[in-house]
Amino acid sequence: MAETSTGAAQPIKEIADVVHDAGAMLIVDAVTSLGGMPVEVDEWGIDAIYSGSQKCLSCPPGLAPVSFSEAAVKVILNRKTKVRSWYLDVSMLANYWGSDRAYHHTAPINMTYGLYEACRLILEEGQGSCFARHTQNHHALKAGLAAIGMEYTAAEGHQLPMLNAVRIPDGVNDGEVRSALLNEFGIEIGGGLGAFKGQVWRIGLMGYGARQANVLLLLSALEQLLAKQGYKFDSGASIAAANAVYAIA
Amino acid sequence: MAETSTGAAQPIKEIADVVHDAGAMLIVDAVTSLGGMPVEVDEWGIDAIYSGSQKCLSCPPGLAPVSFSEAAVKVILNRKTKVRSWYLDVSMLANYWGSDRAYHHTAPINMTYGLYEACRLILEEGQGSCFARHTQNHHALKAGLAAIGMEYTAAEGHQLPMLNAVRIPDGVNDGEVRSALLNEFGIEIGGGLGAFKGQVWRIGLMGYGARQANVLLLLSALEQLLAKQGYKFDSGASIAAANAVYAIA
Repeated sequence: MAETSTGAAQPIKEIADVVHDAGAMLIVDAVTSLGGMPVEVDEWGIDAIYSGSQKCLSCPPGLAPVSFSEAAVKVILNRKTKVRSWYLDVSMLANYWGSDRAYHHTAPINMTYGLYEACRLILEEGQGSCFARHTQNHHALKAGLAAIGMEYTAAEGHQLPMLNAVRIPDGVNDGEVRSALLNEFGIEIGGGLGAFKGQVWRIGLMGYGARQANVLLLLSALEQLLAKQGYKFDSGASIAAANAVYAIA
Repeated sequence: MAETSTGAAQPIKEIADVVHDAGAMLIVDAVTSLGGMPVEVDEWGIDAIYSGSQKCLSCPPGLAPVSFSEAAVKVILNRKTKVRSWYLDVSMLANYWGSDRAYHHTAPINMTYGLYEACRLILEEGQGSCFARHTQNHHALKAGLAAIGMEYTAAEGHQLPMLNAVRIPDGVNDGEVRSALLNEFGIEIGGGLGAFKGQVWRIGLMGYGARQANVLLLLSALEQLLAKQGYKFDSGASIAAANAVYAIA
């Protein structure tokens, strides 16, 4: 639902209606979205959904939360062909997770404790506050980038708060800027994928990473590096614009 | 190679010769053995081998170290049918692990640090010393159990040091003893699997768990609980026998 190569939010409820009208079931990738924006599994009619622990949940990588609708479970339990993968056999996983506790694998217990704590922290902050924090920092970053002439790849109204994909300005060297951000400032941003390689930067504001300090440091550093690349803009404008957004809140 | 339901060590070198003579390749399960006894992947002619992090490596569960022989890699690279599982597609994993770094998954970095540290601790102790420690504690446990009339399921000369499978004496209640060990002493031993259910106990002495304190506490606790079950034995004999083994070292 959060498409990480383009930074676009997909309208899952609308897609689910079309899919169900056609008699099919909907599987959703919520790796990037979960914990950073609403994911209404039942309300939107999602039949199968999976996520990861390492993005907006801000937990170490290594677990994939999953959920299935009653309709999906029915299909799984009535499957006629043998599942090829022991590891990903959902019916065996269900028996392990359920009251039977039929042995399937040794559970990564430390990861489970980590995920529990990550979820607890989100509930402590409040889901609404957590999502609002993601949105606010996205707005501040976006205002800052716009003030120095940088544009998002996704259309207005479809931009993800936690994954900001922006076009690299003409004449600016992708690799040089990303290396300098990493080596001089300790900031890692993503390069473009596929057709977007060398064309796009992908700036994550996920979970614990979605905060003022990160937005302001990135914009300051980017101004320094873009100026070195010969890119023309109103110096300091990105910080002024971002802080104007924070001032409203 | 360490069969955990029977506690038997498999003679991998001999099996590999038979397998290769027949023109086949050998895959070995080294989940229980790695870190507790020699696993000579190349010398024994193993084509594919996998292990786990949570047994004799004494690292949290969540990673499976794997290795493939050149012959196995050749078969993998020349595979004609599509791999059904993205997750377990070894050729994709190889490209991710290799110099290409072609994205496949988000690596569980915390687990990787954990495994690194676990391997470092084994090398610090010395592999020879580590294996000898497993063997010594196994001998002490075995002497203790023998002194109170308990027998191993695996034949002499084929018993694993890290997984001690022993027959439950007649008239002794499996569940009652294991529950009491866990609840009163904080010791968890495994029950029998399959045909061995209710017939066998499986006592792990793996990695950090392979030490005198664990052997002596288990034997002491077992004597107390077996006596309650009405099982007849020479009280204290298990401890005397185990300590006699430690005295030799």
